This record gives sequence, C-alpha cells and structure tokens, in this order.
Amino acid sequence: MARLALGVAYDGSQWHGWQTQPHGLSVQDALENALSSFAAHPVGTVCAGRTDTGVHAFGQVVHLDTQALRRPESWVRGVNALLPDSIAVQWMAPVPDDFHARFSARSRTYVYVVRNDRVRSPLTHRRVGWVYHPLDLESMRKAAARLVGEHDFSAFRSSECQAASPVRTLQRLEIIQQGAFLLFVFRANAFLHHMVRNLMGTLIHIGQGRQAPDWVDVLLARRDRRLSAPTFSADGLYLAEVEYPAEFNLPLVHARQACLDHLGWSCDVA
Amino acid sequence: MARLALGVAYDGSQWHGWQTQPHGLSVQDALENALSSFAAHPVGTVCAGRTDTGVHAFGQVVHLDTQALRRPESWVRGVNALLPDSIAVQWMAPVPDDFHARFSARSRTYVYVVRNDRVRSPLTHRRVGWVYHPLDLESMRKAAARLVGEHDFSAFRSSECQAASPVRTLQRLEIIQQGAFLLFVFRANAFLHHMVRNLMGTLIHIGQGRQAPDWVDVLLARRDRRLSAPTFSADGLYLAEVEYPAEFNLPLVHARQACLDHLGWSCDVA
Repeated sequence: MARLALGVAYDGSQWHGWQTQPHGLSVQDALENALSSFAAHPVGTVCAGRTDTGVHAFGQVVHLDTQALRRPESWVRGVNALLPDSIAVQWMAPVPDDFHARFSARSRTYVYVVRNDRVRSPLTHRRVGWVYHPLDLESMRKAAARLVGEHDFSAFRSSECQAASPVRTLQRLEIIQQGAFLLFVFRANAFLHHMVRNLMGTLIHIGQGRQAPDWVDVLLARRDRRLSAPTFSADGLYLAEVEYPAEFNLPLVHARQACLDHLGWSCDVA
Repeated sequence: MARLALGVAYDGSQWHGWQTQPHGLSVQDALENALSSFAAHPVGTVCAGRTDTGVHAFGQVVHLDTQALRRPESWVRGVNALLPDSIAVQWMAPVPDDFHARFSARSRTYVYVVRNDRVRSPLTHRRVGWVYHPLDLESMRKAAARLVGEHDFSAFRSSECQAASPVRTLQRLEIIQQGAFLLFVFRANAFLHHMVRNLMGTLIHIGQGRQAPDWVDVLLARRDRRLSAPTFSADGLYLAEVEYPAEFNLPLVHARQACLDHLGWSCDVA
C-alpha cells in the first residue's frame, strides 16, 4: 500500500457538502467512486477541510491508500475522466505513511467572494455572495484587523461544532476589492464549524453600517453566538489553500495563485 | 404605447440561445414571459445580438413597446423577481419610437474567455473555454493585429449566415492575460454568424503553433470557410457591450466596466 495526496477543486453548488452521505450525493462519494474505479479496488479518502453544502474548493487536499502503481500525471488524467464536470483533481503526489490530510495541516485559507451591486448578476449565481446595500470597505477592514490573532471564537461557532476548544488563531483576514467584487481572505491554523460564514455575516453587518467596527470586540468578549449576525450564505465560500510542513514536499499552490488560476482574480492586497 | 430599452445579462449555458423557440427554452421566451407578467399585457422584444445556444451576455440590449407606466427602477426589480436566476435585467430606460435595439446599434463588443491550463477547473465549467496545450500569446497578438480593419470575413462565416455582405469592420481585437485566463475582446460594427467563434478557433490554432500568425492573411484572401480552423466552443463567449448613438442617452456600460462588474476582470490592456 502506498499513500498518495491529491489536490481537488470543486463547484459545491450541486453537492451536499464534502462528507459522505447515505444518498451518495457528496463530493467525497463522487471522488471515491472515481478513485475506486481508476485504482480497481475500493478507495477511502480523508480530507483537510470538510466543506458544507454549497461550499466550493480549489485547494482541498485529500489522502488515500492504494495498491495501484501509476504515475501522478496518469492519476490526474485518469480520475478526471471519471469525475463529473463539477469536480477535478488538480495534482497528485506520493506522501509518507505518516502524512494525514487533516492532522498534518498547519493552516487553512478560505476565500469568500461577495458581489456588491444593486442588481444581481446571473453570471455569478451560487458561486459568489450578493450584497445589495453598499458596503463600507474601511469599516470592514477596521473590524477585520480586530479579529486577527488568537481569540476565543465562541461567538462565531455553530451550535453543532464539535471542536474541543473554541480558541483559534486567525493569522490573516484581508479584504481585496476587484471591480464590483470583494474578496475576503481568511487564514487560520484551523476553523470552528461555520466560523468563516459567521465572521462574514458580522463583517457584512458592519459594512452596511448597522454596527461599528469595534462591535467585534464585544462579540469576542461575550462569547455568545446569539449576539453576532446571521450566518452568511455558502454561495461565495472557497477552500483556497491548505498548508503542510515543507518535509512532505507537496506542490505549493498558494491561495493567491489558486485564486488567479481558478477565478482569474488576484488575492494580493492592492 | 411607450418604447423602452433594457440591458440584460444571462448565463446562456442552460438556454437554447436568444431566439424564441417552439419549446420555449430560449432567453427571449423567458424574458418575454416575465415582462408580459409584469406589464400585464403580451410583450414582444427585439435584441441587439441574437446569441447562440450556450453563449452568455452581460451587455445584451433589448427594446419593447408597452402600455405599462412604471419607473425604470420598478421595472428592473419587478421583472428580475419574475425571472429565473440565470437571467437578470441590469437597467431600463425610456427611448424614442425610432430607437431599434438591432438597427440603431453602432457596434457590438464580444469577450471570449479562455482558461489555459493543463488541468480543467470545475469552477469555470460552461462559462470559460478550456485549452490544454500552452498558448503563445505573442503569436496570437500578431494574428489579431492582422485581422483588425475592414475585411471580407467569408472565411469566418457560418454556412447558415444570412447577411447580405461578408464585409465587416473589426475595430478592436485585443488579448488580455489575467492569471491562467486570456480575455479576447472583439469589437465590430456587426458580426457575421459564428464569426467570433470561428476567429477564436483560428487564433487558438495559431496560439498552439499549428500555423504562423500570417496564416490569417491567406484565410482572409481565400475567403473559404473550409480552410480555417474549426468553430470554437460557445462556453466562454459573452456579448459584452452594444454601442448606440449618444442621442438615445442610454446608460453607458462599457465592456471594460461590464467585465469588471460581472466577471471581476479588467478588460483594459495591461
């Protein structure tokens, strides 16, 4: 048996999230079907980030164990030929047996894309969040700066979250403007359940002027989910990058590059 | 009766083109249904550019005659509430009775978006063309420069084209790189049937090194459709802008701005 890691991109709008489901309509189900077909034996997968229904990815990382000996390029082409159009393997690399897609990960980066315009665009439906009311970028940036760092994120954690601790280190939260679009880039060691969508709801609330930027200090201190804004839609959320220790020698596809490759947008701060 | 013009955006991937169909699955059918519902009388429309099956638009312009007296903002919101997610009115403006969406138009601008990467991206499926082989931007730009101007475009005209003359003036053909994406911007007084997709096929052929840039001179001179490259897919094609005489006072939404608003990409030459 050899362990392999693979990078996966998907349009989550047609799928019931990452995690395998009895009805078989999850990204994991579709991917494992294609991998098992290609490997000619049943293949199970473990992913870095279990994305919700409707959430997309261009930087998902998965590991699997297989007896099939094929070149990485053959895996990519062969499996992609068996996958539906909404899922595609981006790269495949051999890894040592102690590599684990979830537990070896050092950080995750999510990108949330919002279109801020008075009229909806049919060209971004289900792939970009839409906000009708004008958003104040400076207020949202001030709030974002207050969220960066190690905090108890209980106020932004879903009631279904099973993590042992609500403390996470938000390493980066930047907002980049690109025409009518705003890209929110979140990087943390790990995220609580619904944490990005709950943070997004609160940032949009502040951007609409319903609360001042320092409202986030109150929310962090009170640690009460009921005080913060509603969970924002899954539409514009992308798992963009998972970072691993250099020793595993995985292809380096930074969120910045992945954004350019899949969305055509620069994730650099202007 | 008052005449109104409206700007329309659509994701064409689920529609059988613009033109009304007996089965009712065209953009025109869906739009006329929503307009008739809103106006409370049957509404017919005339568009600036009859897009093919699978072709998208963010700059389509349509005119209609109606007895319904409502503010433009009410038309936009009301009709959009009745339209499917893949179609949305962007603006509405009153026009004089001699305005005609098709015959008053001075120029049309189409944008073709290609993703040039060895692996497909599920996030651009049906909205962006995909080319696996590396493309040489300089060769394509040289070919593009030779196509600009007034020419007999018979070599790039579908056999079903009903235009009286094959002569058109290609005012602009620029290729803009944005990460893994290439945006081809075509502006002409008018286009022949399949002209953009046929020009795209030929440019991609040249970009792959199968022909030299001056091949387009031969194609233009020979005026034989059978000599040029196959018609490129409809996937990445967008009707981006229709230009009218200033006297009609329509909202100015340049292709550059529309690209930014709907795709987040700049159509400016870098």
